[in-house]
Amino acid sequence: MQRGCNFFIHQKNTVKEMKIAVIGIGLIGGSMMLKLKGKNFISKAIGIDKNDHHLKEALDLKIIDEKADLEEGIQNADLVIVATPVSATKTLLPKVLDNISSHQTVMDVGSTKQEIAEAVKEHPNRHRYVAFHPMWGTENSGPSAAKVDSFSGKAAVICDAHLSDNDALKTVEDIANQLEMNLLYMTSEAHDIHTAYISHISHITSYALANTVLEKEREEDTIFQLASSGFSSTVRLAKSHPEMWVPIFKQNKENVLDVLNEHISQLRKFKAALEKENYDLLEELIRNANKIRGILDQ
Amino acid sequence: MQRGCNFFIHQKNTVKEMKIAVIGIGLIGGSMMLKLKGKNFISKAIGIDKNDHHLKEALDLKIIDEKADLEEGIQNADLVIVATPVSATKTLLPKVLDNISSHQTVMDVGSTKQEIAEAVKEHPNRHRYVAFHPMWGTENSGPSAAKVDSFSGKAAVICDAHLSDNDALKTVEDIANQLEMNLLYMTSEAHDIHTAYISHISHITSYALANTVLEKEREEDTIFQLASSGFSSTVRLAKSHPEMWVPIFKQNKENVLDVLNEHISQLRKFKAALEKENYDLLEELIRNANKIRGILDQ
Repeated sequence: MQRGCNFFIHQKNTVKEMKIAVIGIGLIGGSMMLKLKGKNFISKAIGIDKNDHHLKEALDLKIIDEKADLEEGIQNADLVIVATPVSATKTLLPKVLDNISSHQTVMDVGSTKQEIAEAVKEHPNRHRYVAFHPMWGTENSGPSAAKVDSFSGKAAVICDAHLSDNDALKTVEDIANQLEMNLLYMTSEAHDIHTAYISHISHITSYALANTVLEKEREEDTIFQLASSGFSSTVRLAKSHPEMWVPIFKQNKENVLDVLNEHISQLRKFKAALEKENYDLLEELIRNANKIRGILDQ
Repeated sequence: MQRGCNFFIHQKNTVKEMKIAVIGIGLIGGSMMLKLKGKNFISKAIGIDKNDHHLKEALDLKIIDEKADLEEGIQNADLVIVATPVSATKTLLPKVLDNISSHQTVMDVGSTKQEIAEAVKEHPNRHRYVAFHPMWGTENSGPSAAKVDSFSGKAAVICDAHLSDNDALKTVEDIANQLEMNLLYMTSEAHDIHTAYISHISHITSYALANTVLEKEREEDTIFQLASSGFSSTVRLAKSHPEMWVPIFKQNKENVLDVLNEHISQLRKFKAALEKENYDLLEELIRNANKIRGILDQ
């Protein structure tokens, strides 16, 4: 199933200018367009968005060359990128596949994959779709948050590669190459388990930490004057919008619950060590956590 | 008790060169020396450390001008800064106060204050001590991790100011001024409650998150190839050493347990919302957490 895990695309860029339509001109879609335009990979960038303000912003920022409605945008594109919240992706993707011909490619950039895979698995044009997830984001949203070099050196995942046509796959691999990402291949199922651990739980801990401190802040309004860089770092993700994250948690509910239960039980170990004044155990828990240094700094 | 909360020192620097002895030449002590030396605030920087390697490093990096043993170092200093882990500070501080005369000042930089205050409250030289906490740190340690502009714009706390002589207080306020920190005044008790919320809990959530993912990583060794910037951000503090943090949690046990219990109950709300598929509640929890944006970005 895996197509060369941790595989980095080393081949020379075969730059072919293409027309790309992006559905959802936000942080991710916008950042992709900025980079691909900078590399002259795009002959035309078409923006499709139900938010007129975002479309105008994207035009002003030269993230897109023109705006279009869904049907017209799809018709005029070699590649359609669905870059909406995953709830919308699940609904939109079958409609997009309804409207493409066999020379067109469709990809998404969603943070969940299993439910989206499920939504199109019987679609006659499934083979033109490539499931893609660039592992980058910030707590900000909208085209004004887009940054040109966001993806460079980050991981990107292609899921269920065997279900996509080779030329469609090659197109998306070219995109990952242009974005300078490290490409990994796995199943939708494996993707959703891994992202629950490596991304989704971080958001829940950050939201819960923000709520913990905000609860206190109602009593003590000076507390935030003390906010340290450590606090800002752990709570940064708590700024992320529910429009994006509720659908992710919903679609990856079972995995997120598994990890959340594990996380609560890890926190309970710290609680027990403190309550019992077992500082040897506390030290052991911390020494174990310190191993993350060797792994993350590889 | 509060001496102008959120008070920023605006007065012009009255630069007076002084001899400073730092006990514990690590991240904090080293970063302070680098900044104060850069401002020509110090005529001599004396390093005291039981770790010979750190002393040598600090000399090589010109963080200190000379090394000394405890007694000799104290004797030759106008100001003694105790910059050790808080367990050592609690033991050392009374000894330092035993060995100073009435023209010398002693300050610490510890992350906890109540137990340290308790350890010296009856000491005849208590009035020469100023309880100080600069709200900055990183997951790194030792003199090689010291950075010159670490403290600028960050908060610093002076506790129980009424227990210190005015000239001693003025010396420490000058130091905070030279470090370009925003100074706040509060009791040791208030300090330890606030730091439990704004710093100590962040470390526990980060350690527990690292342990959660490391537990999984034993099964799946590819998981870290997916690590996103969001994960790195929330787990960064998990690299922090137990030598520093076990004593902090020990000294601030009651407050940390209060906040940890609150944090676990906040996580349980997310768990309940997911289990019951109550996505309106999930959205409400996230919208509440989003309020941290307005507060942190002030």
